Amino acid sequence: MSARLARYLPILDWGRGYGRHALTNDLIAAVIVTIMLIPQSLAYALLAGLPPQAGLYASIVPILLYAVFGTSRALAVGPVAVVSLLTASAVGQVAEQGTAGYAVAALTLALLSGGFLLLLGVLRLGFLANFLSHPVIAGFITASGVLIATSQFKHLLGVDAGGHTLIEMVRELATHLDDTSGLTLLIGAGATAFLFWVRKGLKPLLRRLGAGPLVADIATKAGPVAAVVVTTLAVFGFGLADQGVAIVGDVPQSLPPLTMPGLAPDLLRQLVLPAILISIIGFVESISVAQTLAAKKRQRIDPDQELIGLGAANLGAAFTGGYPVTGGFARSVVNFDAGAETPAAGAFTAIGLAIAALALTPLVYFLPKATLAATIIVAVLSLIDLSILKNTWRYSRSDFAAVAATITLTLALGVEIGVASGVILSIVLHLYKTSQPHVAEVGLVPGTHHFRNIHRHDVTTDPRMLTLRVDESLYFVNARFLEDLIQRRVSETRELRHVVLMCSAVNEIDYSALESLEAVNQRLREVGIGLHLSEVKGPVMDRLKTTHFLKDLNGEVFLAQYDAWCRLTGKGEDDRASAAE
Amino acid sequence: MSARLARYLPILDWGRGYGRHALTNDLIAAVIVTIMLIPQSLAYALLAGLPPQAGLYASIVPILLYAVFGTSRALAVGPVAVVSLLTASAVGQVAEQGTAGYAVAALTLALLSGGFLLLLGVLRLGFLANFLSHPVIAGFITASGVLIATSQFKHLLGVDAGGHTLIEMVRELATHLDDTSGLTLLIGAGATAFLFWVRKGLKPLLRRLGAGPLVADIATKAGPVAAVVVTTLAVFGFGLADQGVAIVGDVPQSLPPLTMPGLAPDLLRQLVLPAILISIIGFVESISVAQTLAAKKRQRIDPDQELIGLGAANLGAAFTGGYPVTGGFARSVVNFDAGAETPAAGAFTAIGLAIAALALTPLVYFLPKATLAATIIVAVLSLIDLSILKNTWRYSRSDFAAVAATITLTLALGVEIGVASGVILSIVLHLYKTSQPHVAEVGLVPGTHHFRNIHRHDVTTDPRMLTLRVDESLYFVNARFLEDLIQRRVSETRELRHVVLMCSAVNEIDYSALESLEAVNQRLREVGIGLHLSEVKGPVMDRLKTTHFLKDLNGEVFLAQYDAWCRLTGKGEDDRASAAE
Repeated sequence: MSARLARYLPILDWGRGYGRHALTNDLIAAVIVTIMLIPQSLAYALLAGLPPQAGLYASIVPILLYAVFGTSRALAVGPVAVVSLLTASAVGQVAEQGTAGYAVAALTLALLSGGFLLLLGVLRLGFLANFLSHPVIAGFITASGVLIATSQFKHLLGVDAGGHTLIEMVRELATHLDDTSGLTLLIGAGATAFLFWVRKGLKPLLRRLGAGPLVADIATKAGPVAAVVVTTLAVFGFGLADQGVAIVGDVPQSLPPLTMPGLAPDLLRQLVLPAILISIIGFVESISVAQTLAAKKRQRIDPDQELIGLGAANLGAAFTGGYPVTGGFARSVVNFDAGAETPAAGAFTAIGLAIAALALTPLVYFLPKATLAATIIVAVLSLIDLSILKNTWRYSRSDFAAVAATITLTLALGVEIGVASGVILSIVLHLYKTSQPHVAEVGLVPGTHHFRNIHRHDVTTDPRMLTLRVDESLYFVNARFLEDLIQRRVSETRELRHVVLMCSAVNEIDYSALESLEAVNQRLREVGIGLHLSEVKGPVMDRLKTTHFLKDLNGEVFLAQYDAWCRLTGKGEDDRASAAE
Repeated sequence: MSARLARYLPILDWGRGYGRHALTNDLIAAVIVTIMLIPQSLAYALLAGLPPQAGLYASIVPILLYAVFGTSRALAVGPVAVVSLLTASAVGQVAEQGTAGYAVAALTLALLSGGFLLLLGVLRLGFLANFLSHPVIAGFITASGVLIATSQFKHLLGVDAGGHTLIEMVRELATHLDDTSGLTLLIGAGATAFLFWVRKGLKPLLRRLGAGPLVADIATKAGPVAAVVVTTLAVFGFGLADQGVAIVGDVPQSLPPLTMPGLAPDLLRQLVLPAILISIIGFVESISVAQTLAAKKRQRIDPDQELIGLGAANLGAAFTGGYPVTGGFARSVVNFDAGAETPAAGAFTAIGLAIAALALTPLVYFLPKATLAATIIVAVLSLIDLSILKNTWRYSRSDFAAVAATITLTLALGVEIGVASGVILSIVLHLYKTSQPHVAEVGLVPGTHHFRNIHRHDVTTDPRMLTLRVDESLYFVNARFLEDLIQRRVSETRELRHVVLMCSAVNEIDYSALESLEAVNQRLREVGIGLHLSEVKGPVMDRLKTTHFLKDLNGEVFLAQYDAWCRLTGKGEDDRASAAE
């Protein structure tokens, strides 16, 4: 009972042995992550089209719930760039940005997403996430990075531009270029350049100046906070808000509020597909990070329990003023590197962010939106990785096709169509490949009992007997292929009396393939040709025995292909000696 | 050049050697098929919601075009029951039955269907039809048979009822039950009973009375014609049309007219998905029949050329007043049994039907619709075969699930949703099965170089070395499964130093699986465990060599698993001798 409970409540597992050492490490990690998360949470809320506090709220209760239900010890849950973009795209289709309906729809999206993740977890359907192939994910993340960065240019320029696809965004920006606010651009471009420099140049510089690695590291991570402080002070000191620099403005001082997602049937219907998409993409991203970090300490992640953890986190977000969340890559790595030992580090981070939401929000009144945009741009540029195109091109054209289609369609038609097309294309390409399995005609290697491909080896064959070795399980997608192949061979070879299917590599014969074999058997019988099987695997044979196929078979089932050869050609040991000459 | 032309124009192949013997056989077959097709064509047009002559027109030019482009020598192309039902369902969503718009939309459907089939044929994409598994087709045909028979009850009762799903139809019939025309019911029920008796009882009776088999056979096939003649005469003689018996009425005396399908963008958009569905279902039905008949004479069907033949036939239907057509089972078997030797038999049938359309249509003025409904009901009952449920249940639960879902959803939600759900479910179930491939931990069979499953054989293992044999190609759907499995095993076994993947059954490693292997390699390296491969197939190895994986591999690639065993355990020939004791 307790073991069963511990499966659904991993906190019972690590919570029992929690001691002073782990507490210290978790507290240090929490401080570092909190400092990093404050500007990031505000920025991602902006990306999702929500008021800045939504980003903070989405990081508090969800983190606590994940700490109770999740299996990863280092995963940091909260708003992430790609999910924020997906939220903006989905919610933007049902409500106007800035309205109360928009925020309520974002809660609904989190509710549906949480419900779907929980459902998958309880039904143990995590395998569905595997339908997203790596090339599709890589292509999607890269294209999303481009879309996110482009979407932030309006804040750098201080103009009011919209659009969901790359073309729409660029066109909108071009239209509004004349409205550019010079001061905003100065702040935005300055912050972007500064953050780039912090990322690339600060750490080496500090090390050259004699700073320890830890100090250099923390300084680098504090870069965004520094940009926030400096630009906020500048706006405040010089009164730039009155000169056209858009600022964050009033953010309520409050713990996460209790909120109610919208439940109108129409709204639910419109958001259910985006919610499924967000859930699966968030889950795939999250589990990759969690597994990478767990492996470093020989720990284990339970994918189905992760679904429950992320589901609970999203339900938490839905009822406390947040929006869809998942395990983020950057924040989790920082958490892990900072020494977090248990999910308690997440709980302390949540407390830190709650204090920020309660006490620090007045300080961001003068924070320019352009600074947040700069934070986002610099963060997402690391998502953009076009090398996947080159790598898949070299490795496999069908993987390349999946990446190229995903990137192109995501940029041109939007995130939902892009990723859906990628998934469908990769499944169709896979089915296509298995629809034409490798089938080798084999013959006897003289002097042995082995049978090999007649096109690669010097083997003995008999014109009365055709032996085909099928190198794939037989199922509906390739059943007709085998029918066609046998029919073609039979119509070409008049002397033929026996067809033998060598099934050593056939792991399964499904009902469609069974019916195809029955049809082949029937057709061959009518023209006086026998159909035989050899080397059928045990489980496949057990299944065939439940049917009439073996009784109706116009031929025999041979344990070994060599037995078939001896019986059907009348050649045998004698012949073998002469063949070996 | 000529060979290439002959590929696209099979008529050049059989037309060259056409002689008197084939001519006689083809003519006899054509007469028999024509007699059978006249009532059938009128009835299927009724089922499709079209005026009766559309059924005749759809059998004339399409047959001629298929004779030129098709590869089957016996296939008879024209309206069939399932495609007529699909047509009624698709066109009913865009136009009101009985209006001019309805007939034009049916032409558009034939145009789109023909275009899609041609496209598939030219691009050689016939494999797409394989995505329809046998259980899905069987379930769909059975459910369609139920829907078709039910849809005809309104004609038997002489009431005006609609509905596309089983529930809708039954509810509509119940509502209109009070309007039943007694005379219509008498004719309809009488014709149905008569046709049943002809099917089951006439042939044995005639044989007992001393008739030859050929005479008995022709008499059986002429049953529908007899029902048509008798009921038409009854309606005419007793003036039943004035007493509420619905009749076919005026049918124009004309050769197939030149018609123009509707090309409005809205119409095309609404019909494109149904057209794809009709094309694929029609193609699958047609090719099964064609292959069965071709095999009996050791002839061959080229599936891609069949697409072109059927595509041309549908384009012909679109421009000559027809609606979507395909190769029908019953008519093709009759054609074959009657001795048709070449597609010329089809051409002669077309001429027979053209004469009927030109000269005989006034004779069907008083033909009661109830008789046509009886013809349809008796014909489609042979489509209904619930044994597929029992057979798949015994053979494989996932095939059973696909059948059951297809039947249930087709009856409850309509033909399009039913078949689409069946296809999606069977693909998802297949992917699910391969997402959890069989992976066996293997050990050395003492005294040999063979490695076998540790759970089935008495084998030698070493706690420092874990050898996993993967019995499936590695691709995106199962890539994460292997990652999880290795991580679980590594987190359980502290002594472990080496993981060996035995790849003898791995026919492919796609890019996702490659990245998973890279991740596994990286994670194992960090905890000081080596990752090794053994028995990698040539083509798989060639591909791996184009990547960094082999350079980064924290271990070795062994040609034989036994080499890995000797190297990694330090045991070898000596050990083998002692193990064999």
